[in-house]
Amino acid sequence: MRATLIYGAGDVRVEDVPDPVLREPTDALVRVLRSCICGSDLWPYGSRPASEQGDRIGHEFLGVVEDVGADVSGLKKGDVVVAPFVWADNTCDFCREGLQTSCRHGGFWGANGVDGGQGEAVRVPQAQGTLVKLSVGEDSALLPSLLSLSDVFPTGHHCAVTAGVGPGTTVTVIGDGAVGLCAVLAAKRLGAEQIILMGRHQGRTDLGRDFGASDVVAARGDEGVAKVLELTGGDGTHAVLECVGLRPAIETAVAVVRAGGRVSRVGAPQYPEVPFGWDEFRRNITLTGGIAPARAYIEELLPDVLDGSVQPGRVFDSTVGLDGVPGGYQAMADRTALKVLIRP
Amino acid sequence: MRATLIYGAGDVRVEDVPDPVLREPTDALVRVLRSCICGSDLWPYGSRPASEQGDRIGHEFLGVVEDVGADVSGLKKGDVVVAPFVWADNTCDFCREGLQTSCRHGGFWGANGVDGGQGEAVRVPQAQGTLVKLSVGEDSALLPSLLSLSDVFPTGHHCAVTAGVGPGTTVTVIGDGAVGLCAVLAAKRLGAEQIILMGRHQGRTDLGRDFGASDVVAARGDEGVAKVLELTGGDGTHAVLECVGLRPAIETAVAVVRAGGRVSRVGAPQYPEVPFGWDEFRRNITLTGGIAPARAYIEELLPDVLDGSVQPGRVFDSTVGLDGVPGGYQAMADRTALKVLIRP
Repeated sequence: MRATLIYGAGDVRVEDVPDPVLREPTDALVRVLRSCICGSDLWPYGSRPASEQGDRIGHEFLGVVEDVGADVSGLKKGDVVVAPFVWADNTCDFCREGLQTSCRHGGFWGANGVDGGQGEAVRVPQAQGTLVKLSVGEDSALLPSLLSLSDVFPTGHHCAVTAGVGPGTTVTVIGDGAVGLCAVLAAKRLGAEQIILMGRHQGRTDLGRDFGASDVVAARGDEGVAKVLELTGGDGTHAVLECVGLRPAIETAVAVVRAGGRVSRVGAPQYPEVPFGWDEFRRNITLTGGIAPARAYIEELLPDVLDGSVQPGRVFDSTVGLDGVPGGYQAMADRTALKVLIRP
Repeated sequence: MRATLIYGAGDVRVEDVPDPVLREPTDALVRVLRSCICGSDLWPYGSRPASEQGDRIGHEFLGVVEDVGADVSGLKKGDVVVAPFVWADNTCDFCREGLQTSCRHGGFWGANGVDGGQGEAVRVPQAQGTLVKLSVGEDSALLPSLLSLSDVFPTGHHCAVTAGVGPGTTVTVIGDGAVGLCAVLAAKRLGAEQIILMGRHQGRTDLGRDFGASDVVAARGDEGVAKVLELTGGDGTHAVLECVGLRPAIETAVAVVRAGGRVSRVGAPQYPEVPFGWDEFRRNITLTGGIAPARAYIEELLPDVLDGSVQPGRVFDSTVGLDGVPGGYQAMADRTALKVLIRP
């Protein structure tokens, strides 16, 4: 089959690889209907050292079950399923607590002999725990929004949930990428009263307004902080959803959060330390979030996707076949595409 | 009257100062029955630049109302009262949310013309919101434990509450100072299942065991981390209560917290940044806590103090008069005293 590999910064190739086969009785084989490129794929695309050996890449996919191992129940050939971006048994103590990203028997796609999602098919370890069956056909118009359950939508939701967003909450979302926009959507869905979106790409912030943003702040740094404070009577917002992962974003986050408030981060941090000294202590600021246990949220979010009351799939503004994947990476790196959908 | 002033590192003096008088109709005058020296007083005692002008110091006291301003209701001459370590109106939006440390009309003792607590009397601003009436006499044997409601006990409680401690929680407490020991007491009171106290002063850790610690780890750094992990099957604890405020303590905290767990800090941070990068992100660690809104917790903790079911006053192992205050600072700095009670 064909699948995507990354060889180094700016060097993504689609190549022939061995067809996946069942290895463990807990495996399933899934033919990929839709995959996509994640903002976090751009970190290695931007900085990975070049190597002779490529690594499989991609961690978001939705597809059709082709075969299941002897220990997999509840799934059969022909089922349409979505996979969260970390595979997990969904039975260990961490999984039962809703932290499938720390599953004792789980792991990442594209690592340790496990396929990446940006290919024609995937061997899914711990398939019974990992995959969620979808009650749609292979040609459903909902596939893009359902695919977003793999990562971006639950990631935005995790950010909002851990930040304590609920009815009456005021929220700042930092970042107008696909995760930031899904964080807006999630905050709105959870009842936030005011949602200030910090972003400077108008096409994206316009979608953010559609998703529920009440205000958009294009300015960054001190000027951006001043704008958010101005919009909140000088206090900042109860919740700040940091959806970027860079140091200036977390600095902005702690500057615009209200005393007693919560900063949640779901952008993979490209920094080792956080400014969190006396001022944050004096103001009782909480810093939370982390890699989203998407699996924990899929059942909760699914009904609203199926009935169309949320449409997170609108973050996809470009669609490519497998051949188009390298160009898709470049388009996202150049910010000419927000998020690229792949139809293998 | 006489009161304590700090002139610089190691230079604490007890001097004659003007008697307090009512200045605002919201003030009360309180004659101090008991005050004490706080671990946080040791920061300026250790490093304050020398100056000609001394500053009033002390933020924990309990006393008798001598006079009240025209706008103060619910308090009268002769009432025994305790003051939280930050004064507040207890009516603004932050106060109503239980964050009296961010009161819009509040402030710190010993600053901006407000008396410190380590003296014979105190003018109490926003007295109606600040002071809590106690149903005991001036000679009650409970005064030390009631005085602890001013700071250390609610601070330990705030640490445990913000860290999410409840029935079944496993907890690590870092630091065997008075706040750390009160954090043990608070965690036990909230139902923690296992409480590991990290400290190396046996007299203190013995009291920690009395307060509810199930394990004591005397080792620090990597060795201490390894011990805690060994005691928790390699996972660390759900909650980590960081009651020190130094960089090595927060480093230990993030190293011994279980995935999905919470680190709360109530030791005033002597560092500007916290190690909080990819590993903490991957494990979904929350960092919380801050300066404790003691006022928010006094009514909740008071009954257990009054009926003797908790005895936080046991952290006082030394009692001095006002003349003994400079020696009390030195004893706490030398760690020959755990916490010094002052009877002016």
